[in-house]
Amino acid sequence: MRRLRLGIPLGMVIFFSASMARADEGMWMPAQLPELAEQMEAAGLELDPATLTDLTGFPMGAVISLGGCTASFVSDQGLVITNHHCAYGSIQHNSTGQNNILENGFLAASLKDELPAAPGTRVYVMVRVQDVTQQILAAVPDGAQGKARYDAIEAAEKALVAEGEREPGMRCRVSEYHGGLYYELVTQLEIRDVRLVYAPASSIGKYGGEEDNWMWPRHTGDFSFLRAYVGPDGKPADFAPGNVPYRPKHWLRIATDGVDEGDFVMVAGYPGRTNRYRLAAEVENNIAWYYPNSTALTRSLLAEIETVLQQYPDARLKLEPMIAGLSNRAKNSEGLLAGFERTDVVTPKRELERGLEAWIHADTKRAAHYGEALADLRALIEREQKNRERDLYYGTATRWTMLDAASTLYRLAQEKRKPDIEREPGYQERDLRRIRERMERIETTYDPRVDRLLAFERIKMYAPLPAGQRVEAFDRALDIGPGAVDEAQVNATLDRIYAGTRLNDLQTRLHWMDASVEDFERSDDGFIRLAVALYPANLAMEAEDEAIAGEFDAVRPRFMEALIAYQKSRGQTVYPDANGTLRVTYGNVEGYEPRDAVWYEPFTTPEGILEKDTGKEPFNAPAPLLAAVHARDYGPYTLASLGSIPVCFLSTLDTTGGNSGSPTLNARGQLVGLLFDGAWESLLANWLYEPERVRSIHVDIRYVLWVMDRLDKADRLLDEMGVRPAFAGK
Amino acid sequence: MRRLRLGIPLGMVIFFSASMARADEGMWMPAQLPELAEQMEAAGLELDPATLTDLTGFPMGAVISLGGCTASFVSDQGLVITNHHCAYGSIQHNSTGQNNILENGFLAASLKDELPAAPGTRVYVMVRVQDVTQQILAAVPDGAQGKARYDAIEAAEKALVAEGEREPGMRCRVSEYHGGLYYELVTQLEIRDVRLVYAPASSIGKYGGEEDNWMWPRHTGDFSFLRAYVGPDGKPADFAPGNVPYRPKHWLRIATDGVDEGDFVMVAGYPGRTNRYRLAAEVENNIAWYYPNSTALTRSLLAEIETVLQQYPDARLKLEPMIAGLSNRAKNSEGLLAGFERTDVVTPKRELERGLEAWIHADTKRAAHYGEALADLRALIEREQKNRERDLYYGTATRWTMLDAASTLYRLAQEKRKPDIEREPGYQERDLRRIRERMERIETTYDPRVDRLLAFERIKMYAPLPAGQRVEAFDRALDIGPGAVDEAQVNATLDRIYAGTRLNDLQTRLHWMDASVEDFERSDDGFIRLAVALYPANLAMEAEDEAIAGEFDAVRPRFMEALIAYQKSRGQTVYPDANGTLRVTYGNVEGYEPRDAVWYEPFTTPEGILEKDTGKEPFNAPAPLLAAVHARDYGPYTLASLGSIPVCFLSTLDTTGGNSGSPTLNARGQLVGLLFDGAWESLLANWLYEPERVRSIHVDIRYVLWVMDRLDKADRLLDEMGVRPAFAGK
Repeated sequence: MRRLRLGIPLGMVIFFSASMARADEGMWMPAQLPELAEQMEAAGLELDPATLTDLTGFPMGAVISLGGCTASFVSDQGLVITNHHCAYGSIQHNSTGQNNILENGFLAASLKDELPAAPGTRVYVMVRVQDVTQQILAAVPDGAQGKARYDAIEAAEKALVAEGEREPGMRCRVSEYHGGLYYELVTQLEIRDVRLVYAPASSIGKYGGEEDNWMWPRHTGDFSFLRAYVGPDGKPADFAPGNVPYRPKHWLRIATDGVDEGDFVMVAGYPGRTNRYRLAAEVENNIAWYYPNSTALTRSLLAEIETVLQQYPDARLKLEPMIAGLSNRAKNSEGLLAGFERTDVVTPKRELERGLEAWIHADTKRAAHYGEALADLRALIEREQKNRERDLYYGTATRWTMLDAASTLYRLAQEKRKPDIEREPGYQERDLRRIRERMERIETTYDPRVDRLLAFERIKMYAPLPAGQRVEAFDRALDIGPGAVDEAQVNATLDRIYAGTRLNDLQTRLHWMDASVEDFERSDDGFIRLAVALYPANLAMEAEDEAIAGEFDAVRPRFMEALIAYQKSRGQTVYPDANGTLRVTYGNVEGYEPRDAVWYEPFTTPEGILEKDTGKEPFNAPAPLLAAVHARDYGPYTLASLGSIPVCFLSTLDTTGGNSGSPTLNARGQLVGLLFDGAWESLLANWLYEPERVRSIHVDIRYVLWVMDRLDKADRLLDEMGVRPAFAGK
Repeated sequence: MRRLRLGIPLGMVIFFSASMARADEGMWMPAQLPELAEQMEAAGLELDPATLTDLTGFPMGAVISLGGCTASFVSDQGLVITNHHCAYGSIQHNSTGQNNILENGFLAASLKDELPAAPGTRVYVMVRVQDVTQQILAAVPDGAQGKARYDAIEAAEKALVAEGEREPGMRCRVSEYHGGLYYELVTQLEIRDVRLVYAPASSIGKYGGEEDNWMWPRHTGDFSFLRAYVGPDGKPADFAPGNVPYRPKHWLRIATDGVDEGDFVMVAGYPGRTNRYRLAAEVENNIAWYYPNSTALTRSLLAEIETVLQQYPDARLKLEPMIAGLSNRAKNSEGLLAGFERTDVVTPKRELERGLEAWIHADTKRAAHYGEALADLRALIEREQKNRERDLYYGTATRWTMLDAASTLYRLAQEKRKPDIEREPGYQERDLRRIRERMERIETTYDPRVDRLLAFERIKMYAPLPAGQRVEAFDRALDIGPGAVDEAQVNATLDRIYAGTRLNDLQTRLHWMDASVEDFERSDDGFIRLAVALYPANLAMEAEDEAIAGEFDAVRPRFMEALIAYQKSRGQTVYPDANGTLRVTYGNVEGYEPRDAVWYEPFTTPEGILEKDTGKEPFNAPAPLLAAVHARDYGPYTLASLGSIPVCFLSTLDTTGGNSGSPTLNARGQLVGLLFDGAWESLLANWLYEPERVRSIHVDIRYVLWVMDRLDKADRLLDEMGVRPAFAGK
């Protein structure tokens, strides 16, 4: 281990001298928090920061992952609060044209009325986190490079996961920090009977829709409730009527008095990914190529979806999750590009790199140790970018729902030929349930007429790629070449595939989970034939990608190690990029200046809903809400200094995608809101943290309670959370 | 005079009990200001408000009208400062494809380099204002109604004007207050040799263009300089090389220390028109019919202009004033409609009317005196609206530049048959110079290819009108009827008219000013033939409009008198609507909340230009400006509390169109900026004053000085204004 040779101690300490961090910057690993005690107390924390390092104690033990979103327990009966947009799939899954609960909202009258969440929904309760760096790196043979290195690390990870999951009900995962400088094994209890308890109408929970997404001022009631169920024995179990609510060790208490401007807040959650230590060359590629092209592509697809839905309006409900996902991604990228336009990220990166190189070469020991880490990394980045057209457009071109399903099923058949531990992650025995759930979820998200037309659009986007970026097998299968496609011919092929398939039937799809490679090779189903035809090419590309990933695994940690040491020499901190692991960020309720002469106040009010409301989606608040606002029928939920109910608020917290649904806690660890978004001017923060601009957006718990109490009469849940309904019986 | 019978004293007093006015509301007649002394002093005024009643003293004597805009003298050499958009026509008039000073800016190196302003440009210096109510009303025969009443008032006005203009160099006008409850004769010195001295580049003076128009935050350097010239005898004269700068009695001093947030500011100027005392029925018609339709029409024309300019890009410079005017009007209407959407104006109007009627009928004397003023007014409004389609679409359909010129010239020939005093206003001897200037101005604003295509669009907009709203003469001349036009046939007609005319030649147009009616009737010029053909119909419509106007002249003052008395009984103030006369408004530098959770700070900075700048019009600040901002090369022009130069600022002043270019004065009457716009959320104020939303936008004098000093090296003018250039020689 190189770090040992440099005499840097293992573990947390390499990440920071926390005392140097800029205020509010940083998605901190809980274990780092005691080092931040002074700043956290200065910011207003009243708890001992050390309590936050106990991931199974209070309050951290109440924070859970939904896989992609964060949530928290808010009762001893496994009641879970998260964002409306995090439960969106489950609300949509339970919606029908006749009973559109996405539109109308849903409130289970009693436990037995709570609805199964969408297939694949999970609640992950943190059990433990272990440093496994030694184990992983020890498994890499000396001098192993490229794919060999990648495979060795993957094998070591799989072994650790398999070992960890011998404990029943557990789900494990190895997380990589600093590109592989440090590895952690995360063990979580995996609860797989999750039910939908309560969601407000979309016109509250998604108020402002895509138009307001990433924007302030915001008036979105982005909350909903799930519940974790387990078997009568208290252990995770598949959905069954006899299951009982899970009894968490910890749950959050509601701070009915909420927060005011300037107050301390913190968020614990699972931020997905940031790129704060990427090189100038990577930033440039993303500014000049990746984001503009991927965004244009997403926007084209969205436009095409809208066109197609004109023709098949009844398909909209099924498409909603895809539309929401694509829209969200496109707008995020646009905000990011606006940030890149506004703020020069490349020049400071270049200067940092020059400084780092000079520092390395100023000392023979350092020069010997870090060598050409930066140059190596740059060369690798260049290699990685060579296939960028193919990666983006071929990736998109093949993302037809049923082709994707067929490819997954065929890959499973291929992988099943190997011993479980040798299979590709995602195709092990531990993954079968997920694959089945994906096959099930297609039932409520797939419309073959729409998918068919989108497949054509996807192919058209791929069609102009030059020879070097094309996938021959795909060209051959569809009989296309560079340039304009023969539309009639491609359409005829697609018609044949979509019309002839039997995969539209769930039982058929599930049946294929048990089929052999030979069964697939004999099939005349168009999707399966295409999956089989593309398989060798896909596998070859995967191997190529893994070879590069293996190189990165060797080079990036070396660069990060140098960077950490360099920054330390300058008295500056390097904390790890977000990587889907549990983090804590703290700061204060605070507005900001989005642009010259404009100040965004930290709280919105329901009066702002009256201003925005047009009666048309997405500004179509329910009539009872508008009436209650007109009457200022606010009960005990007002913030005196605001003279109204706070609907949403801004904070200086450093968050990103994956943090959605995170509980926002006050200085005493009580629930004051839910994190659900970042402000438009913050979107650059995934690449560069700008303290004056980074703001997170939260729905205020007082608005949540008011909607529950005054509008939706969710007294059962308020009682369960220990909140006395103020409007009960009125 | 009815007022006397009720015992209400004559003159100012009828307008207000000023002490009851809401803070900052009101475009005050200068004579009213002493009554506001207490509030003005509370707001921060350090001058004696009584000094502001002397319209020829300091500082009011320095405030001048440009006819449509306001301006002020800023040196003893007749140097005039006003908005860039007020001098726009003169800048454009002097621009050519080779020497585009509109784009590049213009700075006269010396007096002899100053350029003649556009034909028709005037500087009006206030001489006196006289109450002529008695004279006007005495001229109306007892019981005269409709057109008879209208004609009697017009004749009395013309007599007063003629009498006033016997003094050489004077221009007079009778202004009507409260719809005719009070009349004033305004006498101004008319200076007609006006020259362009200095204008910054459009990329400063029109920075943000239409996109930022009516918007905050704003970064528009909306200023330019003219100079008033007179004959060597000091009297107004036509342009001549031997003319000399006018020596005003008063001119404004520059407050180089400017203003800060909260400071007192006031604006003296010539606001054009407000409609704060219109009835609910009038508001409803404007919300539901007039603004939506006129805006749609204007937007269609603008879109058509852009299409046509694709074809003839060389015509753009000539079209700029028309584009700017139409765009400004359309966006203003859109802001107004947004205001009507946001704020219910109709309900409070209806309540006020109900209250007024109840109050009138609660007292037999009042009932006898005011009678059915309100009901009469409502009936009249209904009658007036009957022709609204015709008025809008026929008005637009005939607004081809050369048809308009031909109609003017033919009308002149007709009017010339009458003694001067009996002619229609606009066609008297006193108007001949203006008509000539209009004919001249066509030279730099008219492109027959574009005009021809727009004429066709205008006709298409008129074409669908139903029979009752059509003008038969127009239909006959173009051979069209209700419904879709025969495009080929109309185009052939237009081609013939445009191709065959000789009016494109200025000398020919001027020649027609001396032609007889018979000459016109014999002409085979297509435009003249059309003008002659439409004349009887136009005259009949004018007579009809005048008849209704005469009815309004009788009824609206009666309503206003009742309203004033009613409001007085409730302790509330009625001040007169803006009517193009000199007014003063005062208030403070202050931001506002445009919508929930957003606060607009009162000052913008040049750093905001960096944020907005895209390098593309209208966000294309000159490179030297951007460089100077990057370098923060601000010299002495920074506002310490802001840490930068204030570019524009917001105030609570109550202003409207016509106020543009008005000097913004500090508590000591020194120049701190120029009023140039109202904020988007203020646009409703022409109909309803909302104190929390009404904000005026000013360019800060420190930004003006910095641009002059640091960028444009206008040292000559700075010296002339008594400002020592800080960057001289740098």
